[in-house]
Amino acid sequence: MRVLITGIDGYLGWTLAQHLAERGHIVAGADAFLRRKWVEEMGSVSAIPIASIEDRIAAFGEQFDRQLAFVECDFREHSEVVEVLEDARPDTVVHLAECPSAPYSMIDVTHASFVQVNNVTSTLNLLFALRDVCPDAHLLKLGTMGEYGTPNLDIPEGFFEIEYRGQRDRLPFPRQAGSWYHWSKVFDSQNVQFASQLWGLRATDVMQSVVYGTHVPDDSRLATRLDFDEAFGTAVHRLCCQAVIGYPLTQYGSGTQRRGFLSLADSMQCLTLAIEHPPSAGEYRVFNQLRDVLTIGQVADLVRTAAESLGFDVLVEPVQNPRHEVEGHYYNPDSKHLRALGFVPAEPMEAVLKRMLKDLAPHRARIRSRAHLFEPKVLWKRHAGKAVQYMSTPSQERS
Amino acid sequence: MRVLITGIDGYLGWTLAQHLAERGHIVAGADAFLRRKWVEEMGSVSAIPIASIEDRIAAFGEQFDRQLAFVECDFREHSEVVEVLEDARPDTVVHLAECPSAPYSMIDVTHASFVQVNNVTSTLNLLFALRDVCPDAHLLKLGTMGEYGTPNLDIPEGFFEIEYRGQRDRLPFPRQAGSWYHWSKVFDSQNVQFASQLWGLRATDVMQSVVYGTHVPDDSRLATRLDFDEAFGTAVHRLCCQAVIGYPLTQYGSGTQRRGFLSLADSMQCLTLAIEHPPSAGEYRVFNQLRDVLTIGQVADLVRTAAESLGFDVLVEPVQNPRHEVEGHYYNPDSKHLRALGFVPAEPMEAVLKRMLKDLAPHRARIRSRAHLFEPKVLWKRHAGKAVQYMSTPSQERS
Repeated sequence: MRVLITGIDGYLGWTLAQHLAERGHIVAGADAFLRRKWVEEMGSVSAIPIASIEDRIAAFGEQFDRQLAFVECDFREHSEVVEVLEDARPDTVVHLAECPSAPYSMIDVTHASFVQVNNVTSTLNLLFALRDVCPDAHLLKLGTMGEYGTPNLDIPEGFFEIEYRGQRDRLPFPRQAGSWYHWSKVFDSQNVQFASQLWGLRATDVMQSVVYGTHVPDDSRLATRLDFDEAFGTAVHRLCCQAVIGYPLTQYGSGTQRRGFLSLADSMQCLTLAIEHPPSAGEYRVFNQLRDVLTIGQVADLVRTAAESLGFDVLVEPVQNPRHEVEGHYYNPDSKHLRALGFVPAEPMEAVLKRMLKDLAPHRARIRSRAHLFEPKVLWKRHAGKAVQYMSTPSQERS
Repeated sequence: MRVLITGIDGYLGWTLAQHLAERGHIVAGADAFLRRKWVEEMGSVSAIPIASIEDRIAAFGEQFDRQLAFVECDFREHSEVVEVLEDARPDTVVHLAECPSAPYSMIDVTHASFVQVNNVTSTLNLLFALRDVCPDAHLLKLGTMGEYGTPNLDIPEGFFEIEYRGQRDRLPFPRQAGSWYHWSKVFDSQNVQFASQLWGLRATDVMQSVVYGTHVPDDSRLATRLDFDEAFGTAVHRLCCQAVIGYPLTQYGSGTQRRGFLSLADSMQCLTLAIEHPPSAGEYRVFNQLRDVLTIGQVADLVRTAAESLGFDVLVEPVQNPRHEVEGHYYNPDSKHLRALGFVPAEPMEAVLKRMLKDLAPHRARIRSRAHLFEPKVLWKRHAGKAVQYMSTPSQERS
């Protein structure tokens, strides 16, 4: 299949490009390099060093004996998105070209607006371009389990059939996001669903849980990034980076928040299953993508145990929760659609964590020199006059 | 009370300013004059001539013996919104500064993006400014009944208590909007609800049904606008303007679409009740604001009957429905909250329609010279290459 990955330079995108090429798919990619800028704005770098896009493309060509078609594209410009689709003529577009950080969106009004506008316009531009250039292509869009929040009900996959005052209907499951970023993903889901109804586009919306894992092939140019700053370092990544430098594991709050988790390898497997089993024309389907449901405290313990088994000396140290989230709550999401397509989780979390720690250990100096970034500075509920000062305007220029 | 009306130069805003001043409230206003630009872009004008903002302000001062504090403000600029709030120090902000047109958002990708970005950023800017400048002020935001779509269930006011697989929760009622514009209003509702949770803001979100009515006081400078072009002319207004020039009433589709309707006077009464009965700190409440539920066919018949009683010769002529909407469906929205606050509908629709037709009759020449605008050109489901050509980029510059 011809697969276009938007945001191919990111954590998932760069790994997926290689995974799909290994399976014989023809991969093209586009990116604006905003993720590199945003992490730089946070004063950080990827814990695992990453190559320039030129070196990445060269390594990809050597590895897979096929040139990676790459275009630099600002997805907020509709005409650029049209050009990318016209060049790639994809069967599938995997849309990863969005800002993925909740804390980044919570910095201030400028970042909140930037994240919502960036994500909504990028997705709208892609939807209209699909309609006009390749209306039969399958759009595989990344959402997040965070769109649902933590309702006191089971979480179905996107839709549920309910009875209310004696009437029945199948409706979208209510969304209760917890950050400006998470709301931007809800908006995107709603726009994709609408476009699918309106124009008969085929779309898969993946409600992804927290993904963790390294991708460090022999050729270091093929390694994918792994962030640990408070905005782009997701929980497991941050905890693993803390563990390898002996920094106390900063568990947010009581640690009783329950979330879904999934390894990078399992995520690759799930996305590939979705790509290789596209929906029908006009079908908008939602997959909840997760393997384990764990509390943040359980995750911290798993990281500690894995680290101790490798000889690292590790403490868990709860810090005041900077986020706006419920602690101690019901959480029971469905995840049947991907299993029905054949998803069989690979390695258990313990094994993946150990490999992550081994992959991160050589880069302790990079992490240690930025350990001050572990303390959360973006306080989601803060009021006027308490804004974080070290960040300026969101990085939206191309490099 | 000190009430700031954002979008005071618009249809509802200009009427509300006078209604509140009559009740002794201290009114301030802000506007960017985009509505005037958008209607001009559609090649149209208000059927009822409207005065310049300078003349409006002068007339307001004469009528109410009190100066109207007005500021020109682009709500997409956060710093300008902050200034407006700092000047006005309002008890209530009535937020009407959004693009209100579904067809306008359906023109093309540029207009879709413009409407969503304009509405989302304006509302976000206002939310952050409220947090920082006057966190105790009441935000009265206009939503639309169109956010709910037409589910096969009763439509509660914003939230519903449901049981699902043996668990219970109170959740936001699922939104199923039918245009990029309607989705932008959903996004705003979701952002306002989140801000209210996060910062303890007090907010009322009015899911407004189709409002109809003229406001033509003796001093013509105090008259409010009434549009009839396909983008900004809502169903009843368009039908009334057609009736007074003997143009066949363009009922979209079978006319079996059911919607809520409310007169301008009733809308003023409802908004005033919300203003004079603010929610508690941290409370986000939703009011469904409607009086009658009617089919589009019934509305066309009511307009025809009212017009015939005044001697106009009128036909109803169904045209192909340019919209993406279900015809013939269940529709049963709750509307109890405003009644509980004391809302008693005033004149029945028939009486309001007659006065509207009388108010419009003197302006037949203005309408007749633009009768070509009655034919819908924005076809919501059209595919690539069939875009309307007569419109260029959205009007977003200030006049």
